[in-house]
Amino acid sequence: MSTESMLSVTDRTKLQRRPKRGHYDRETLYSILDEGMVCHLGFSAHGQTFVVPTAYGRAGDRILVHGSAASRMMTSLAAGIDVCLTVTLLDGLVLARSAFHHSVNYRSAMVFGRALLIDESEKFEALRLFMEQVTPGRWDATRPPTEQELKGTTVLALPIEEASAKVRTGPPVDDAEDMGLSVWAGVIPLAVKAGKPIPDGMSSLAAPSYERYAP
Amino acid sequence: MSTESMLSVTDRTKLQRRPKRGHYDRETLYSILDEGMVCHLGFSAHGQTFVVPTAYGRAGDRILVHGSAASRMMTSLAAGIDVCLTVTLLDGLVLARSAFHHSVNYRSAMVFGRALLIDESEKFEALRLFMEQVTPGRWDATRPPTEQELKGTTVLALPIEEASAKVRTGPPVDDAEDMGLSVWAGVIPLAVKAGKPIPDGMSSLAAPSYERYAP
Repeated sequence: MSTESMLSVTDRTKLQRRPKRGHYDRETLYSILDEGMVCHLGFSAHGQTFVVPTAYGRAGDRILVHGSAASRMMTSLAAGIDVCLTVTLLDGLVLARSAFHHSVNYRSAMVFGRALLIDESEKFEALRLFMEQVTPGRWDATRPPTEQELKGTTVLALPIEEASAKVRTGPPVDDAEDMGLSVWAGVIPLAVKAGKPIPDGMSSLAAPSYERYAP
Repeated sequence: MSTESMLSVTDRTKLQRRPKRGHYDRETLYSILDEGMVCHLGFSAHGQTFVVPTAYGRAGDRILVHGSAASRMMTSLAAGIDVCLTVTLLDGLVLARSAFHHSVNYRSAMVFGRALLIDESEKFEALRLFMEQVTPGRWDATRPPTEQELKGTTVLALPIEEASAKVRTGPPVDDAEDMGLSVWAGVIPLAVKAGKPIPDGMSSLAAPSYERYAP
């Protein structure tokens, strides 16, 4: 991890509105990136903006994304175009006494930069990190990728250099004159939870359990 | 709602890879849009792509987004630039016997177009729809927006004309030669669940409960 724990604020990472919600320290940013499972990757190709959901992993100061070597997106990105990668965790509905002050609690991370091909020699380890982040301990239990599978997989790394986090927490903020209204106000917390594992019916092994998805 | 239930497939909505995951009917698309709570809005401004998470609502054949009239994003969008709005629902981790065949079950919707200012006269109703979609019945319980609050809020509508959905469901698909491996394979379902409501401490009313977030 970089020894520089604070990120520089740039024109594109600086929050224009509600600057208090902005965070530029790697600790906050990485805690969001490490909790998320899907990012939204934005890029422009052929004059059009695309926003594509994709799995990702963080390896130190880089974000890894992967896909088929035949993927249009992977090919576009690997050419070295600017991307914006956003991860959003929805933490709750914020219900105020007035319609106007309704909000959501969330934590989001936004990273700008170019996602470039990693060295062929790094690919195996990158894919291992990828899986270990989502399902710790699983890599060693599964059949590792073959040479052919590795060849068919493109792994890109986006350096975490220009990035910011945005966080809203806490109760609603109502206007003073609304506080006497007979309306419930507070937060309904939301979180991603796992249900009962569904075996594919071809094996009688016990399902693994992963703490991060505890019901 | 449009009488045309199938969307035309265009260059930017046509799936290049795994075409079987693509859906171009409004029913599938709308079911995804109606279940999501946050979209990722991608657009290019000053030569840079931004991907911004934001709340949204669907009103018939339009997607509504709103924000402060002072917001940089709202102002950029209202000028009539091309956007890509993506909603992703994560339904499960797909654990295969081989690392290579791991996947996720998800449903995503992607809408291309321009999000334009709605008529001032439509704003009140748009905001009502917005709230009713997330928390049915709440609008009538809360203090409605004032003239001033309406003035400070920008509401944009993105017509659902060029759009597609992408869906992966079901168990992992392992290679035949891996089926004998002693590895648990199946799906760990994931869903957004509500926790216990947290009152803001200023009222003693009972918290509302919303079926869609049932724990």
